[in-house]
Amino acid sequence: MDRPQATTRAIAALSGGDLRVWSLIVTILGDMARAPGAEVSGATLGALTDAVDIKPEALRVALHRLRKDGWISSRRVGRGSLHILTESGRAQANEAAARIYDFDTHQPTGWHVMVAQPMTQAGRNRLDAELRGLGHIVIAPGAYLGQGPAPDRPDLLLLEGNALQVPTWLSAAVMPPRLLQDYVSFEQALKVVDQALEADKPDPLTCAVLRLLIVHGWRRLVLRHPALPDAFFPPTWRGPACRRMLRDLLERLGQPRGADLLTG
Amino acid sequence: MDRPQATTRAIAALSGGDLRVWSLIVTILGDMARAPGAEVSGATLGALTDAVDIKPEALRVALHRLRKDGWISSRRVGRGSLHILTESGRAQANEAAARIYDFDTHQPTGWHVMVAQPMTQAGRNRLDAELRGLGHIVIAPGAYLGQGPAPDRPDLLLLEGNALQVPTWLSAAVMPPRLLQDYVSFEQALKVVDQALEADKPDPLTCAVLRLLIVHGWRRLVLRHPALPDAFFPPTWRGPACRRMLRDLLERLGQPRGADLLTG
Repeated sequence: MDRPQATTRAIAALSGGDLRVWSLIVTILGDMARAPGAEVSGATLGALTDAVDIKPEALRVALHRLRKDGWISSRRVGRGSLHILTESGRAQANEAAARIYDFDTHQPTGWHVMVAQPMTQAGRNRLDAELRGLGHIVIAPGAYLGQGPAPDRPDLLLLEGNALQVPTWLSAAVMPPRLLQDYVSFEQALKVVDQALEADKPDPLTCAVLRLLIVHGWRRLVLRHPALPDAFFPPTWRGPACRRMLRDLLERLGQPRGADLLTG
Repeated sequence: MDRPQATTRAIAALSGGDLRVWSLIVTILGDMARAPGAEVSGATLGALTDAVDIKPEALRVALHRLRKDGWISSRRVGRGSLHILTESGRAQANEAAARIYDFDTHQPTGWHVMVAQPMTQAGRNRLDAELRGLGHIVIAPGAYLGQGPAPDRPDLLLLEGNALQVPTWLSAAVMPPRLLQDYVSFEQALKVVDQALEADKPDPLTCAVLRLLIVHGWRRLVLRHPALPDAFFPPTWRGPACRRMLRDLLERLGQPRGADLLTG
């Protein structure tokens, strides 16, 4: 397909580095088919992945793996196929979506610190995993920071409060330099997309590809750190700037519909 | 000296176990001579310690040790001597007095939890000592609980709040079974004193000895645990009951004056 140079540059900027096919498909299904019963056709997946130079064989391998891991199920219809998120796949997609599509600026609500009694390393690993699953941050061995109402755990020391002082070492621990840099790169890629959209209104498939890559890149950033108020992160963090651009770009690109993508 | 049996039993109940002479003298000076310039005569010390069967030689050894350790200084006057707390001795006595003579029920004020970044064991030992000195409790490695306003430490994570949930393991850690039992024994001794006072009004020296032993026993209990609101400790803790009896008994026994003790 012939594309204006600006659009090609935008796609390249967004897909730079490590596009994993199965992860990209999770993004597509989570973006286009999160509603119960919503299916995406093999033809649509083919059109989107072909646009970022993913070979049909790589797509087939990825779909096979996602079925094996219980993320999706597939059915044949005529000469094509339809793919749908499983119950557990949809649950995970919904959980991630709450983070990915949350464009509000994050204002601090209440906080709580919980501290466990001295225990074995194995016991603490279990508790770490359990509380991380509830969105808590491990701030010291056996000490956890959480937002909002605390879980009912009478075995833990619990202090609830509003005034939280975040020291530099903790900001840096939840947002290490590498992740901070990845936000900078993502912001630059979004600027390239912004320029491409000003130059030319792309066709529906290109709009869908750009949207998909933006959501995918954002998803791979936000899910690498806990959901915390903006003030928690270092002042050099480009998250709020990215979030503003993202909202604007997704609005301009529009929501893709499978049928449109195959007529280009 | 002849004493009613009830009074003798009361003195025995209070001095049971481990009366260390130098520690008892610290209690006496802290109780009778905490004001700047206040002195206690060797004769008064002799009368009080003789009443609890401390030999004059043991008193001399203890006074020598307290001078060597910088707690007191002494001067000869005629055939006797006068003893006075040093500046540093008075500072320590005042600090302890704030705990010993604080008969208010302790209501929770604000709380704060502070958490340090990962550090070496030596660094953490230093921080533990520093924050314990400010009245904080170590609740986990690198995690500290404090009352009231937090110190200005931008290097620590800090959460301030009012609602504190104290788990059983932490109550038990600050008030171990042995100390809990010592409070029970002390309460029983106070009941014996109470009965003795109802039977007979003792002479001034005996009143002074009883007061001294009560303050001494209480001092050796309260300084063994952090100053925390009552609700922090196990429900079986007899501290509040002891505090009420103590206040009542000290009022009935009156404040001793050195001159009265030597005329008996």
